[in-house]
Amino acid sequence: MKHGALLHALAVGFAIERRGARLMLAESCTGGLASSWLTEIAGSSHWFDGAVVSYSNAVKSDVLGVRDVTLRVHGAVSRETATEMAEGLKRLHRKALARHSVHHAQEELVAAAITGVAGPTGATPGKPLGIVCFSWSGPWGTHTEERDFGGDRSEIRHLAAIYCLSGLLARLSAR
Amino acid sequence: MKHGALLHALAVGFAIERRGARLMLAESCTGGLASSWLTEIAGSSHWFDGAVVSYSNAVKSDVLGVRDVTLRVHGAVSRETATEMAEGLKRLHRKALARHSVHHAQEELVAAAITGVAGPTGATPGKPLGIVCFSWSGPWGTHTEERDFGGDRSEIRHLAAIYCLSGLLARLSAR
Repeated sequence: MKHGALLHALAVGFAIERRGARLMLAESCTGGLASSWLTEIAGSSHWFDGAVVSYSNAVKSDVLGVRDVTLRVHGAVSRETATEMAEGLKRLHRKALARHSVHHAQEELVAAAITGVAGPTGATPGKPLGIVCFSWSGPWGTHTEERDFGGDRSEIRHLAAIYCLSGLLARLSAR
Repeated sequence: MKHGALLHALAVGFAIERRGARLMLAESCTGGLASSWLTEIAGSSHWFDGAVVSYSNAVKSDVLGVRDVTLRVHGAVSRETATEMAEGLKRLHRKALARHSVHHAQEELVAAAITGVAGPTGATPGKPLGIVCFSWSGPWGTHTEERDFGGDRSEIRHLAAIYCLSGLLARLSAR
């Protein structure tokens, strides 16, 4: 685990915990990398409830509730899918907490989603290698962004996970 | 990512793909680490559908279907919880694939679950730091095991993720 990753994870943890919020992630191309960084931090269970690594469309759709029409029309790597991953995850998170604790149900829920083309295959016309879509959902609403990263599979995954945490941090710090 | 991790991930991927099976993971204390290794492999989407990082009990129970009575009586770190995580994950996997493809529904499904005390806090009488419970569910049935790892948080997580993949490999190679 590189130092940049650990610093980002620590900063996100601090910002989430300070506002008493709870976080979950939905990771596709990063495959659990961002979650593994967050949970490297001792005490992360105070603010991190978990993640869905939705590597296949079946998991995106069935676990996170991304609509089939969205996957068909816009593709798995799209702003639309990233948005539905983050918002579906927040619904799943709220439902899980509501069943288990009244207190938790009143906390702010924050979700971030990552879906992209890490390569070396998977690129399509309009979705070249390195395209990654992000969505951050929280008290600020849902913000979605598409970015283009350079590098090989491992570098794209690393940069995408860093960018996801960095985007979370910016939004958590803005309020 | 250390070389031992990559070798284990490659070997699991090869063994799973060779038998035309599909894999999902349920990770608690490892927080996505094993999934991040598997998805570092190009082409892992051919056999890996994703993971549930069930860091909190709410996610273990609501997403994976671990029973409240199991968590209450045996605890989140127990053979019983690991077994229900793996078997619940397989149900979720089967349901997701059945909805999306008739072909997939006939493939062998393999699930592995990890739940443990990575520390530095979280130890309880009978569940000291370093205790990790594993469950591997597949055509061989469901095998569950408790192990005791030494080291700090980071080392325990690393060893647990390696042991999970190693256990998968042994079972996949046995038939």
